Amino acid sequence: MSDENVVYIGSKPVMNYCLAVLSSLQGDGSMVSLKARGRAISTAVDVAEVTKNRFMEDLKVENIEIGTEELESTEGRMRNVSTITIVLKKG
Amino acid sequence: MSDENVVYIGSKPVMNYCLAVLSSLQGDGSMVSLKARGRAISTAVDVAEVTKNRFMEDLKVENIEIGTEELESTEGRMRNVSTITIVLKKG
Repeated sequence: MSDENVVYIGSKPVMNYCLAVLSSLQGDGSMVSLKARGRAISTAVDVAEVTKNRFMEDLKVENIEIGTEELESTEGRMRNVSTITIVLKKG
Repeated sequence: MSDENVVYIGSKPVMNYCLAVLSSLQGDGSMVSLKARGRAISTAVDVAEVTKNRFMEDLKVENIEIGTEELESTEGRMRNVSTITIVLKKG
């Protein structure tokens, strides 16, 4: 999977990311990965569900993985943050 | 899987749910499901990761499913909410 087929989910509205997913699947790629950390994990699930239910009926959830990353906080301490990767496949 | 092996994730601290997962796995069950909706989805991922990394090294993520539920809002309108189910397995 090329780098263009990753959509990083942050704090923008769900619909912005749905459009990014759809345009990523307009090309020759049939798969796209949604990646999110922390509070954005819920948004990543919203993006997958809304894209599937409203815009692209033949989209399937191919795989979901969760994990943990270490981040350095502004005070220089390390803290753990949860991550999710949702792989969506067309057709 | 019996009903006792489901932990519903809400807005309490992550550690409360970790304890519920651990005590659920103290019994004869080797599997437990975490279920969450909306903003609590991120917390469900935190609970799975913290329990696995800090308390029970042989815990594995057996399956993750996402979905959509219709909820009636207080004004009587229907709105969609995303859901997640994370199945954890011991050993």
